[in-house]
This record gives sequence, C-alpha cells and structure tokens, in this order.
Amino acid sequence: MEDFLTKLKNDLFLRACKRKKVERTPIWIMRQAGRYLPEYRALRQKADFIKMCKTPELAAQVTIQPVDIIGVDAAIIFSDILVIPEAMGMKLKMIESKGPKLYDPIRNMNDINRLKKIDPTKNLKYVLDAVSLTKKELNGRVPLIGFAGSPWTLMTYMVEGGGSKSFSEIKKFIYNDPKSAHILLDKLADAVAEYLSAKIEAGADAVQIFDTWGGLLSPSDFEEFSLKYIEKIISQIKRKDEPVIVFAKGVHYKLNKLANCGADVISLDWTMELDKVRKKIGNKVALQGNLDPTILYGDKEKIRNEAVKILKSYGKNNGHIFNLGHGILPDVKPENAKWLVDVVKSESRIFHTK
Amino acid sequence: MEDFLTKLKNDLFLRACKRKKVERTPIWIMRQAGRYLPEYRALRQKADFIKMCKTPELAAQVTIQPVDIIGVDAAIIFSDILVIPEAMGMKLKMIESKGPKLYDPIRNMNDINRLKKIDPTKNLKYVLDAVSLTKKELNGRVPLIGFAGSPWTLMTYMVEGGGSKSFSEIKKFIYNDPKSAHILLDKLADAVAEYLSAKIEAGADAVQIFDTWGGLLSPSDFEEFSLKYIEKIISQIKRKDEPVIVFAKGVHYKLNKLANCGADVISLDWTMELDKVRKKIGNKVALQGNLDPTILYGDKEKIRNEAVKILKSYGKNNGHIFNLGHGILPDVKPENAKWLVDVVKSESRIFHTK
Repeated sequence: MEDFLTKLKNDLFLRACKRKKVERTPIWIMRQAGRYLPEYRALRQKADFIKMCKTPELAAQVTIQPVDIIGVDAAIIFSDILVIPEAMGMKLKMIESKGPKLYDPIRNMNDINRLKKIDPTKNLKYVLDAVSLTKKELNGRVPLIGFAGSPWTLMTYMVEGGGSKSFSEIKKFIYNDPKSAHILLDKLADAVAEYLSAKIEAGADAVQIFDTWGGLLSPSDFEEFSLKYIEKIISQIKRKDEPVIVFAKGVHYKLNKLANCGADVISLDWTMELDKVRKKIGNKVALQGNLDPTILYGDKEKIRNEAVKILKSYGKNNGHIFNLGHGILPDVKPENAKWLVDVVKSESRIFHTK
Repeated sequence: MEDFLTKLKNDLFLRACKRKKVERTPIWIMRQAGRYLPEYRALRQKADFIKMCKTPELAAQVTIQPVDIIGVDAAIIFSDILVIPEAMGMKLKMIESKGPKLYDPIRNMNDINRLKKIDPTKNLKYVLDAVSLTKKELNGRVPLIGFAGSPWTLMTYMVEGGGSKSFSEIKKFIYNDPKSAHILLDKLADAVAEYLSAKIEAGADAVQIFDTWGGLLSPSDFEEFSLKYIEKIISQIKRKDEPVIVFAKGVHYKLNKLANCGADVISLDWTMELDKVRKKIGNKVALQGNLDPTILYGDKEKIRNEAVKILKSYGKNNGHIFNLGHGILPDVKPENAKWLVDVVKSESRIFHTK
C-alpha cells in the first residue's frame, strides 16, 4: 500500500478509501469527463462516443480534462460499461440523446451460448492501453479509477437491448428462466473480475463497480441476482491494496450485507443520509457521495449549503469521499462543478482537524 | 364510521384501513382498471383515454370491470391525476405509448398567475358524476376509492410538461425559484383538498394521494417540497371516517414523519420490507402493498410464493391491505392478476385467526 501511495502527489482519495487520516475530504464526480465540459464537447465533434473509448489518446485526453479544469482528486478512465457485452459479441450503438442500443438482445440459453468468453488483453486491449497511457500522462497528479458494470446491470442492458422504462424483459427473464439468468450472471461476474484485474494490472489505482439497476429489485431479489455476483467479482479481482468501490443506485436496503460484500467503499445516492447509514453499518467501509446532481443547477450559495450539509452529516470521521449521488448532468455549468470542488476542498478541513 | 361500513357488503378494505379486525387480507391493485384487461381495451377502441375519463358512463364501466373480472376488494375510480392541471387551464394530451403531455409548462410566477382556481363542482363535475354513478352501480359490493396526485407530483408534471428522464426542469425550478415553487405547491394543495373533499361528498369511501415523484427528492427536500403539502391536504379534506392513503413511491426515508402526516394508510413500493417498516413506525398507520408488479410475469407458483412472503412479512397483525408496489403493467396476463387475488384471499386467512 505505502509503495503505491508514495508515487502519487495527491493520494487523498486512496487514503479516504482505506479510512486513513486525510487533511481534507477528497472529491471526484461521477461522469466528470462528460458533456457538461465544452472542452469535452469540442473533442466529441471529431469522434463519436465509441470511437473516443476505443482511441487511447482521445480517452486519456478527456479523462484528464476534469483534473485540469475543475480540480478533482481522482480521474476515472473514460469508457462505458457496455464494452463488455460488445467484447462478448453483441453489436453496440450509442444513439444520440437516446442512449445505448445492444442489438439482438439475450432472451434464452441459446442466446447466452453464442456469447464469447472475453480475454481483456485481447478484445479489450484498447481500454487497457487507455489506462496505461492516462496513468503515464497523469504523472502521479491524482489516482486513476477503473470501472465496470455489475453483472446484474450488464445483464439488464443485454436482455432489454438498451435502457428501458418498465424493465419488463429483464424481469420476465429472471422470473421465468432463473436458471439461465444465473448462468449468464456467473459468466459476467467472471468477465468483470478478469477485466477489472487487467485494469489494475494496467495501472488503475482503484476500481468502481456500477450497479445502476440494482434498485429495480426487491431486497431479496437484489441479494439473489445482484449482490451475490458483486461479491464473487470482488473475491476474484487480483489486486494489492487497490480499493474497490460499489455503487448500487437506489439500493437503500440490505445495507449491512452490502457493507460486507468485500468492497472498501460504498457509494450512495442522494436519497440516503450519511449519518444514518454510518450508524447502521458502523465503520466497516468508507462512504462515497452523495449530493443530488441537480443541486448543481442551483446558485453558489445553494451549492455551498448543500455540500456543507453532507460534510456535516458525515462529521469528524475518516473514510468519506465526496461525490454526487449519480452522474453529473450534461446541462450543468462547468463553473458550478468547479465551485463544488472548491467548496468541498475548503469547507471540509475543519472535519479533519484532530 | 359504523354507518357507512354497514352499507357495504364487503367492507374488508375499509376495516383494514382503520386497522380493525378482518377475516382475511383485502386486496386491490393500482391501475387495476387498465390496459392488461381485454375488456378495457375493447372499450378504449371506442373512446380515447381523456374521453373515457370525461364520460361518466364509460368511467364507471371500466372502474367496475376489475371487481367483476378479477375480484378485487375495492374499486378505484377511473381517472387521471392530471385532470387538475387541466382544470386549472393547462392543455393536456395523452400520447399513445409515450405518456401525458401538458402544453406551455410552468416556469415562473407569470405562468403560475395564469392558472385558474378550480371549483370541482364546476370544472371537474365529470369526475364527481363518475364517482356517484359508479357508487350507484357498484351497489355496495365493494368500497370506491377516489384519488389525486400530490402537489409535488402535479407540479413536476406541470413544470416538465409531462414525464421526464432527468427531471432537470423541476429541479432547476425549485432550486432557483423556491418562493414561486412554494406558492404553486400551496395552490395545488388547496385544489387537491377541495377536489378530494368533493369526491368524498360524491360518494368515495376512501381517497389515495399519489406522490409518484416523491422519491426524486433528497430526504430534506421531500419534507420541504412534498410532505408538508400532503399534510396540508389531509388536514383540509372534509371527511367523516373515510380513510386517506398516501403512496409516496421511492420514499424509503422519513418514514416516521410520513406515518405522522395524518394518513390512515401508507402504501409502500416493493423495495420496502413490511416487517422492517412496521418495526420502525409502530402501529400508527395501516400499510398497503407491496408486491413487485413484475412478479406477475412469473408463473403461478412464483406468484404464490412471493405473495405469501409478503403476507408473512406483515404477519398476524391488523391493518394490511395487499396491493402491488406500483401500477399493474399493461402486458400482464389477466389470469395472473386474478390468481394473485385468489391466492391472497385464501392464503391470508391464517394470519387473521385469533
């Protein structure tokens, strides 16, 4: 641990993940390399989303933008969770202002059987190259986070063929053919574990698992169809001390089990209260979050007040990484994002004095 | 109370709302008068959604269909929460498979000022007529529920101009112009209270307030922008013993405050665990819910198991009304809905023996 921390000029994020003492609360923002930044939009004019993911130089460039422009304490590699289904053989397209589309969705065991086993060093090499290149170009300024979707969330996209409003297809699938669902989830868990191990090998200092659709499930279904496979991934990731963060959006139940899944950090959405969660689960894990992303539509005073409320809710405790409760929205003013970063940097010091 | 109960042949639902003893758990289903029923679709061929709402004979007919076809213990008047913004002067259109659209959305105080004060006995008379007619045609078989949207949920539609994915406009509105937002919420609370009072006057045996978008808010914002106005409504509704049900979807926080809002019943979505909620809030209110609507995609055994799980979770306690955790989905088989009703009717008896 000490070894890889000392290479970094700013290791606040990694120390907070391990609940070690810090001088101030570190902050990064989900989807911080994104459309709200004019610098990002300028690059996107030259290449579409998937091409940017697949071109290490472009991916590295946009990954580093928020470090330079808004001053976050960690970078997260520019990519998408759906690169895994694509690597397994599904055709992926990003449809402007509509979201991702996966062609020929998975509906039965035959469909599952046609999925390829991935080898990250081969068919996801472009991500690993982007990680190494970004790591080099960051030159130790801040840590670099790698990420993947949870098996449940990936399967949801693969069965629905994209996003959804009612999520009927995925629910039909798990309730009518749970056996096939578990086979697919297991395959995905292996793939994600290998993929995240390869990202760490390529230089990622931490990894985050996004379970964007965990909250669609009832508490018992969440355990059966999502949490179990997140645990499997974490037990299989090859890592030294690189922290694992789990973000299960909308999952306000089973918090004790979530805190025991092997993750170092649990990331929370804005409907949770940090003090109450802390009281419920104790000091097992660090917590990340959890400002309502739409607060960044407010004025500076509003943003400061709400940010301070969260810092106070966490209180004088190690193990808090400030973040939004979900990704930053594309129509937020960059100056508001920067203001939030500045506010957290200055206002958090008093919570780390003793 | 006794008076209006005795007029009904089946008053299980009303007794459960008041946490009185029942022989079995009553059940009704949110959106039970809807597209999953072929009998409903047959009528919809002749009239569009809004015309059906506005024609008391048609509204009464579809309201009663699920009582006849699947055997629920309560009817809920066929209508839509957006009849209130329409009565206030906004142009409403239901766009097939896309949802509702409200033209010229509200964005500032000028827009608010152009909204008309409603008089339910005049510009919502068609709803009241539908209630009276349905009540007459039900002939005491089961109670009739009236409903309205919460001020927060109505305002969300009025500001967004319909449904939304990111809910950016409503959040911009409340964070940038909270004063105007509160003025509108207050107007809406008055309108809803008057409207629900008129429905009770017209014959509704109970009313439900739908806060479909409550869960978009952080816990403190929920209190400020939603719960406060639900409380105001409940304190203003003119009623004898007609129970008030509040359904705040996605609101898993502030449950104690919600249980103290003046409602007789709190309706829960499927991410809650009835036993845990009961432990948290005590016996102040009855609970309604909370089967995941997508369980109805499963086979009969799955439906039975999951229904029994919920009955067990509530246990041997008065004050449970079985329902889904959200509206029934349009592609559910009617026989599965009927099966659920039958299962709850038979399997719940053992929980009401002593």
